[in-house]
Amino acid sequence: MIGDKLPSDQLEGQLLPKRYALPIFASDPLSSVAYAPQELLMILLLGGLAFLSFAPWVAAAVVVLLIVVVASYRQLIKAYPSGGGDYEVASKNLGEKAGLVVASALLVDYVMTVAVSVASGVDNIISALPGLAPLRVELAIFFVILLAAVNLRGVRESSKAFAVPTYLFVASVFIMVVVGLVRTALGDAPVAESAGYEVQGEQLTQAAFVLLLLRAFSSGCSALTGVEAISNGVPAFRRPKIRNAQSTLVLMGGIAIVLFAGLTTLALIADVHYAERTCDLIGYANCGDVPQRSLIAQIASSVFGNNSILFFVIQATTAAVLLLAANTAFNGFPLLGSVLAKDGYAPKALSTRGDRLIYSNGVLILAACAAVILLVYQASVTGLIQLYIIGVFVSFTLGQTGMVRHWLRELRAGRGKASTIWGALSINAVGALMTGSVLIVVTITKFTHGAWIVFVVMPILYTLMLGVNRYYRDVEKEVEIDPHVTFGSVHDHAIVLVGRLQKPTLKALDYAIAARHESLEAVHVSVDDEATDKLEAEWRSMNIKVPLCVLRSPYRDIGWPLVKYIRKHQEHSGGEVVTVYLPAFIVGHWWERLLHNHKARRIQQKLALQHGVAIAIVPWLLDSSDLIYGRRSRPVPGQDRRGEPVRPISRTPLRPAREDATRSAVATANALRPKDPDVEIVKPIPVNKKQPRKK
Amino acid sequence: MIGDKLPSDQLEGQLLPKRYALPIFASDPLSSVAYAPQELLMILLLGGLAFLSFAPWVAAAVVVLLIVVVASYRQLIKAYPSGGGDYEVASKNLGEKAGLVVASALLVDYVMTVAVSVASGVDNIISALPGLAPLRVELAIFFVILLAAVNLRGVRESSKAFAVPTYLFVASVFIMVVVGLVRTALGDAPVAESAGYEVQGEQLTQAAFVLLLLRAFSSGCSALTGVEAISNGVPAFRRPKIRNAQSTLVLMGGIAIVLFAGLTTLALIADVHYAERTCDLIGYANCGDVPQRSLIAQIASSVFGNNSILFFVIQATTAAVLLLAANTAFNGFPLLGSVLAKDGYAPKALSTRGDRLIYSNGVLILAACAAVILLVYQASVTGLIQLYIIGVFVSFTLGQTGMVRHWLRELRAGRGKASTIWGALSINAVGALMTGSVLIVVTITKFTHGAWIVFVVMPILYTLMLGVNRYYRDVEKEVEIDPHVTFGSVHDHAIVLVGRLQKPTLKALDYAIAARHESLEAVHVSVDDEATDKLEAEWRSMNIKVPLCVLRSPYRDIGWPLVKYIRKHQEHSGGEVVTVYLPAFIVGHWWERLLHNHKARRIQQKLALQHGVAIAIVPWLLDSSDLIYGRRSRPVPGQDRRGEPVRPISRTPLRPAREDATRSAVATANALRPKDPDVEIVKPIPVNKKQPRKK
Repeated sequence: MIGDKLPSDQLEGQLLPKRYALPIFASDPLSSVAYAPQELLMILLLGGLAFLSFAPWVAAAVVVLLIVVVASYRQLIKAYPSGGGDYEVASKNLGEKAGLVVASALLVDYVMTVAVSVASGVDNIISALPGLAPLRVELAIFFVILLAAVNLRGVRESSKAFAVPTYLFVASVFIMVVVGLVRTALGDAPVAESAGYEVQGEQLTQAAFVLLLLRAFSSGCSALTGVEAISNGVPAFRRPKIRNAQSTLVLMGGIAIVLFAGLTTLALIADVHYAERTCDLIGYANCGDVPQRSLIAQIASSVFGNNSILFFVIQATTAAVLLLAANTAFNGFPLLGSVLAKDGYAPKALSTRGDRLIYSNGVLILAACAAVILLVYQASVTGLIQLYIIGVFVSFTLGQTGMVRHWLRELRAGRGKASTIWGALSINAVGALMTGSVLIVVTITKFTHGAWIVFVVMPILYTLMLGVNRYYRDVEKEVEIDPHVTFGSVHDHAIVLVGRLQKPTLKALDYAIAARHESLEAVHVSVDDEATDKLEAEWRSMNIKVPLCVLRSPYRDIGWPLVKYIRKHQEHSGGEVVTVYLPAFIVGHWWERLLHNHKARRIQQKLALQHGVAIAIVPWLLDSSDLIYGRRSRPVPGQDRRGEPVRPISRTPLRPAREDATRSAVATANALRPKDPDVEIVKPIPVNKKQPRKK
Repeated sequence: MIGDKLPSDQLEGQLLPKRYALPIFASDPLSSVAYAPQELLMILLLGGLAFLSFAPWVAAAVVVLLIVVVASYRQLIKAYPSGGGDYEVASKNLGEKAGLVVASALLVDYVMTVAVSVASGVDNIISALPGLAPLRVELAIFFVILLAAVNLRGVRESSKAFAVPTYLFVASVFIMVVVGLVRTALGDAPVAESAGYEVQGEQLTQAAFVLLLLRAFSSGCSALTGVEAISNGVPAFRRPKIRNAQSTLVLMGGIAIVLFAGLTTLALIADVHYAERTCDLIGYANCGDVPQRSLIAQIASSVFGNNSILFFVIQATTAAVLLLAANTAFNGFPLLGSVLAKDGYAPKALSTRGDRLIYSNGVLILAACAAVILLVYQASVTGLIQLYIIGVFVSFTLGQTGMVRHWLRELRAGRGKASTIWGALSINAVGALMTGSVLIVVTITKFTHGAWIVFVVMPILYTLMLGVNRYYRDVEKEVEIDPHVTFGSVHDHAIVLVGRLQKPTLKALDYAIAARHESLEAVHVSVDDEATDKLEAEWRSMNIKVPLCVLRSPYRDIGWPLVKYIRKHQEHSGGEVVTVYLPAFIVGHWWERLLHNHKARRIQQKLALQHGVAIAIVPWLLDSSDLIYGRRSRPVPGQDRRGEPVRPISRTPLRPAREDATRSAVATANALRPKDPDVEIVKPIPVNKKQPRKK
């Protein structure tokens, strides 16, 4: 029913070896090289063809930033290997509010990862199959729905199938870069299809000139999205976790730099002219109708030949890795939700492991948000990119700033070698400074291009999370044990609610009798004379040895007469606990629920408002309820990147039962002990049933 | 909390005097004269102006039919005064299937009553305020939403406010007819604004000629809709119920005939030319854009002067009575649902009195269907009328046929005076024959004009209801007590599920201790080492005299380790009932539900699938749960026309308790007896707790 048990020594086998960890965590950052160079060059082209000469410098700045960020996250992984990432670092070092800012940034980020990756994936599909161009939005929505369906169904991210596209993408793009460069060295440089298009550059003021370079840099920074993924997934790595995670991070960074630099270089060599609006390209036929092909498609077609097999391979692997990147968000979103829930900033339900229903809600919310934003932006990569990078750099900056605080604290506490700490501190300080500057640049250059939306949504999320936290704090206070509380119910009475004399009713009666209450009676609320008469006759003929009490209900309501009766009963015998037995149907099909009147549930709701009442549900399984079994074995999103079960709860030693007056409980526990190491008995002190427990 | 108790002798005061019964039940049939003459004349006008000379004959046929139907229903009320109406008559006399056909026809009918009445109401508002013409559909949807909101909120139909519009409508239309006829007699006949428009009649074949007359008759028959309402509401009348209901029916029929005949006559005198398409009217300016005014508005403006105060009074009362008629459907729909549910053809939940939630669903479904159909038909009365009358005449015909069967049976059984029965029989036979013929005529003339939709929807409803019934039959069979079933649980064990040591947990422990189970233990499922350590320490420091058993859960799931533990426990002590105590939060705001993880509910769901397990919910009321109280005193839709509580359950005599071994139950019952006549104790035989009950 719950799968084979995993002993502690087998847990290691569940963890990710580096060869799977790399594709799982790197599909997001690596796939961003599919759109980053394109967006970078596109912005430069706004200033005219001459501006492309600045491209190497802007790209170099992005590469430097990437190196700094990778170095910074190497430190973060070492200091916080628990997988909390920027959120944990910020909240631990900069306080709750910084943590919540990071959390809201990340939530926005997951939505944008899905939207941008799917949009870019569709763009690359259309570049290979131009006939699909009119279906751009439909395709994007389709892929979002497909991803949601796959994740609702449950799929293990660590299966080999997930590793293939990433490796294929890296390999094929790498080969393309090498072939392109070799051809250039041999004097046969590739020429892009858009090489012949001219662009009319505007005369720019010096400020506009600087702003344009900064905008190009901002767009190029989209290559950095997803770098933080590994820091969230450290618990999923094999031992030595930190070392493995760090080397995977460095490897990922190296690959990203090679691909980014290679693609940018090739694009410049092949004279790819990718414009924001096709009609800006002088000589472009049908500029309003026919979309330009993605930069990667133009390079592939110039290097390998248009519509060659290798061209299609490049496009297919690019689209695949982009959809895989979108899928990672479907894994990351519930994971972040569970971390937030554990800290009390999101509904507690989100932290429940293995409850498919809860992850389903997360998957549906993420899919709905991504679908709406794709619709609004008509699946345009260029439009969506504007909203993307803000969240990433908010979390980078606060994460790195938190790390600086962390190292300063370590220094002050005198933990570790001062020189090592100073080294780490300086790396993170540079990281914080650079990502902070980039955040300012990105905000300035993108605010009016759509990024303002992010600045509206983030505070809303922030406020919601804070409100949830305050609510939990109040409830916690309310249910806290205080010295003035005493419990001590003395008497005990049981009521079995009887509707008609059917098997479920007899079962409830049987259970109530078996439970040996101090006193017991059956209660029938009469809403129909005939039925009541029939019940009384059957009760007598079956010779049931429990008194049956009939309550009249002129208003045909069952709950309130019962409540009234219980109240009067309690008035006569103060301090009494009344247990009400309710038979309830358990059904199999969802539609069967519509056909049962949930009387038990509605009566339960009314009884729950009464003091001194416990409601005992006696389930009756209808034949169709067999269907409910076995619906639980599918993996939940984020299971692999969470890397659980990592910390086996094995420290609990078995303590012997010291006394065993509570006969059967301890007997059972003793009987279980040799077989089941999961059971531990704490202090079985005899229960004096007559005397209520006192503090 | 549940309102003052109503002793039996006060029940009569809750019932409807005739002066309220008339407006409540007659707003639907009387309001139909607002559109019936208009639709009748409109169809005739399709044949050209000359065809209007047939109008008196067609109208006379409608009046005759109305008289026959009223006479038939007088018989039906006498024979079936329980309020089941056509549905009851058809199912009792013609069998289940005929009953279900009537039921599906009536369900369709309620939707159409809302749609047609609202559309006609809006039409009359626009006739008075032509500036609102572009908002026709929006206004219609608005009124549907308004009606739904009013009924969701809860409103007593029997309040005086509901009687006013009907009486005003009858009075003002009557005055208008009298004034119009007096003016005509004085030689100053009113002239409608459309009197000058010519209509180009087509050359018709003889068959087309007859068909047109029949179509006009069919449309005029919409005056009969709602006549059956009184037969459904007999229980709500004051005594003598049958006599009062019959005289109200006759009064209503008389008023309807006067208004229908008066309006038709005045329309012919004033030469109202109302066309299906305005562009058919030769001389109509802007025929595509400006809608024609309703027939009643044209008469009012010709009799009282355009935009005179009395003109606005007529339009306002017409619109009000039409909206009131739509409101009656919101009362009738849940009523029919509860009757169907009682017979097992609709989800049982619908028969629960006083549960606002259930009526809310009915109100929402009705509103949604009406809104959709208003949207599709763009709130056109002429379009909607085509779908309306089918359902009405299906139920008329089957109801009257059932009555014929009923009388034949009475004759055969020799009950009552043969001559009286023969009289009643002949009335109903004529009714059945005439309504049956009209049904055929209506079907033939309207099928291609949209009525086919009704013939698609009705079989679907029919099949659904039959399927529901078969499902209930199977379940009934499944839970039926059979001689082979024996219950006899011997041992009893209780488990209190402990998460953290908070007040709700202590309360659950307290209740479990008070319930004096044979054995008792606390179980904690450990998903977090720290929390478990803390719990153990607190458990010891509080010196709780119940053994605590800790289960390990490497997968962080609480339900399954508990289920596994219980199963092993049961293996060791066969035939044992395990009661699991779960503390549960009760909250006040709906949004608070999102913030609690419903652990109790989810664990309950898992435990419910185990054999031999009862789940005892121990509610903990959070402060906010105070809000839940007092949400129940509003009237539910259909309360007044249902006329309950009519049959007070008063026959149950108090039988003395013969034995009282079950101490407190009987003691309480005795204590309650002098005060509370609603409590009756049946055969309290001593419960031998050690020995399980046997059959």
